[in-house]
Amino acid sequence: MTDFADTKAMFDLPEGVIYLDGNSLGPLPRAAKARVAGVLTEEWGEMLITGWNKAGWMAMPMALGDRIGRLIGAEPGHTVVGDTLSIKVYQALAAALALRPDRRVVISDNGNFPSDLYMATGLLKTLGEDYELRVVDPEAVEAAITEEVAAIMITEVDYRSGRKHDMAALTARAHSVGALAVWDLAHSAGALPVDLAGVGADFAVGCTYKYLNGGPGAPAFIYVAPKHADHAPPALSGWLGHAAPFAFDLDYRPGAGIERMRVGTPPVIQMAALESALDVWDMADMADVRAKSIALCDRFIAGVEAACPGLVLASPREGAERGSQVSFRFEHGYAAMQALIARGVIGDFRAPDIMRFGFTPLYINEGDVDAAVAVLAEVIGQKLWDAPEYKVRNAVT
Amino acid sequence: MTDFADTKAMFDLPEGVIYLDGNSLGPLPRAAKARVAGVLTEEWGEMLITGWNKAGWMAMPMALGDRIGRLIGAEPGHTVVGDTLSIKVYQALAAALALRPDRRVVISDNGNFPSDLYMATGLLKTLGEDYELRVVDPEAVEAAITEEVAAIMITEVDYRSGRKHDMAALTARAHSVGALAVWDLAHSAGALPVDLAGVGADFAVGCTYKYLNGGPGAPAFIYVAPKHADHAPPALSGWLGHAAPFAFDLDYRPGAGIERMRVGTPPVIQMAALESALDVWDMADMADVRAKSIALCDRFIAGVEAACPGLVLASPREGAERGSQVSFRFEHGYAAMQALIARGVIGDFRAPDIMRFGFTPLYINEGDVDAAVAVLAEVIGQKLWDAPEYKVRNAVT
Repeated sequence: MTDFADTKAMFDLPEGVIYLDGNSLGPLPRAAKARVAGVLTEEWGEMLITGWNKAGWMAMPMALGDRIGRLIGAEPGHTVVGDTLSIKVYQALAAALALRPDRRVVISDNGNFPSDLYMATGLLKTLGEDYELRVVDPEAVEAAITEEVAAIMITEVDYRSGRKHDMAALTARAHSVGALAVWDLAHSAGALPVDLAGVGADFAVGCTYKYLNGGPGAPAFIYVAPKHADHAPPALSGWLGHAAPFAFDLDYRPGAGIERMRVGTPPVIQMAALESALDVWDMADMADVRAKSIALCDRFIAGVEAACPGLVLASPREGAERGSQVSFRFEHGYAAMQALIARGVIGDFRAPDIMRFGFTPLYINEGDVDAAVAVLAEVIGQKLWDAPEYKVRNAVT
Repeated sequence: MTDFADTKAMFDLPEGVIYLDGNSLGPLPRAAKARVAGVLTEEWGEMLITGWNKAGWMAMPMALGDRIGRLIGAEPGHTVVGDTLSIKVYQALAAALALRPDRRVVISDNGNFPSDLYMATGLLKTLGEDYELRVVDPEAVEAAITEEVAAIMITEVDYRSGRKHDMAALTARAHSVGALAVWDLAHSAGALPVDLAGVGADFAVGCTYKYLNGGPGAPAFIYVAPKHADHAPPALSGWLGHAAPFAFDLDYRPGAGIERMRVGTPPVIQMAALESALDVWDMADMADVRAKSIALCDRFIAGVEAACPGLVLASPREGAERGSQVSFRFEHGYAAMQALIARGVIGDFRAPDIMRFGFTPLYINEGDVDAAVAVLAEVIGQKLWDAPEYKVRNAVT
């Protein structure tokens, strides 16, 4: 049984803040400060170039990949860390398309995170004019998966509403017509149980700075199913994905399995912070996390609906159909969120009118939910959002 | 006049070590420890998601890009930081090819860093079978630039020998036949004066963990000439290169100028270390750095040739034709380098027989050169390399 008081104690949360935006950027794991300082002082500073061997920097992407793999149901040795999520989307989709050379259609949905669609568009343009990205409504994905489809590229949990796709069903449907399934786990990894091996996902990608708490700009990850790992050709064929990177051959030979999805020199300092973040996950059981996440979200929905009748639930009411977040629509949502943040309750806003709240049992408990509801009730009930300073839009919202 | 005693004092160099591998990984700037700790504790820890605005994280890639731009002769506002060098090579070459849609040939040379060739190969395969990467000898590049060439993709300074291409001449030659020039400055930025605007380079890329001292896995940079900046289409079209990233449109619209070369969420912690590294560069004049670098390299060559007749110079003897490193060929180079490292003189080895030594005036002085020569003379003269422990190959050499 996971002790969530213990996991909460592993984080450095600011005094007087209730942090409901771990779905955007997880908080600082206490141990990261010493770990990162150690990488600077004892590793980079003392070992210099020899840190790549002595401190094991070169092995970190695979080691961290496996620690994440455990949380998403990946077979050991098939997940690797590096780059950004957008780059990993490009890699995964390019590999999927190369494995279906006679097909030209990619299916995605308009609930996907836009960068996935942008990266796919860029890739398809590079591949040639006969490729097509079909973006349908989330409910229409299953029906859109026909025999001309090379791959589906779907984010399991909608970044705005938290609506959750049925990964097993869509993957099975894709396979039934000979298509491959590429899953983006940005709002899944660390939020809910994922069973990549069980559902037979072909590729998966995700980021580590949300529910995994790896820090601002923490690297992404990519998973390639064992059956494809030695066949998927890397479009981003960088030297660290080469079979023998330090032979400095002029010709590229892909490395074994997932190693070929490495590209360039990995971000050692960011990876050190991620290591500390994953230490907290070693204390957590994902089934416990999921159960408590649903309970916290349900509690928040009930509280808000009772106290703020003007807010309209934008997330599925049924816990099993949601990720680990709750969103409400409110016409003055942007200003209301700024008013909340000014009062120490941090969520975020997504255009046009979505107030978004993430619930992560590792450091959020029932008391936090009740306190957040109380502040929100005050902000809405007393129209505290109706102040000029809350209406100025920031670059990042 | 640059005071190199002052710049040396800005680095945390281990006791008893002479570090001649800044061409692989620069040493730790003292200030990086406090700066990185501050990002963790005061920014990530306290501001959480609001750090993207409040701490200016979102603006860092452009701000750091301009600080690097100053060192490579770029026009302000045309350099941005992010990703790895391999990814930036892919972006730059893809953009160059998109600007020359009627041409199919890319010229590079076999002295280029292999990852550049690998990334180009992956890109050309993605673009279609009619594209061709022609890899010639470094001396044959100029003659290979014919009217069918879309772009040249050249690393200015050879990573093994330090041999330096004539950037102005090759760029002019490329332009004379209507081709574009993509320059890799991995061993140039911070090593010698670069004048991108002056030579009319179209694209440039580089890494920040070598002569710029940004730390292990520090992000890369990319430069796009003003005349192309609003026309070059990004193949890696990620959300942070979108004209309005936080509008979350479903369709991609490239951002203005160099902003479109941003891809995903930037590595904030790595960028903080890089900031401290660039502070040191604010104290240095690149002409002074170059003059002293040539003097240090000349002094090393003279010393080694006098003391170790078995070693054969693999770098140009003429300072103006070299980067900021000196390489010697030696049959037992790998073991000899291990023996040197064991005695506190850190250089590195490149197959098959190259012992490589970088000289960076920011923290290496004449006394270091003389001491390194003395240790090398001992290792070679007394065959100290002939010990079993020096012959075991590491993963990273």
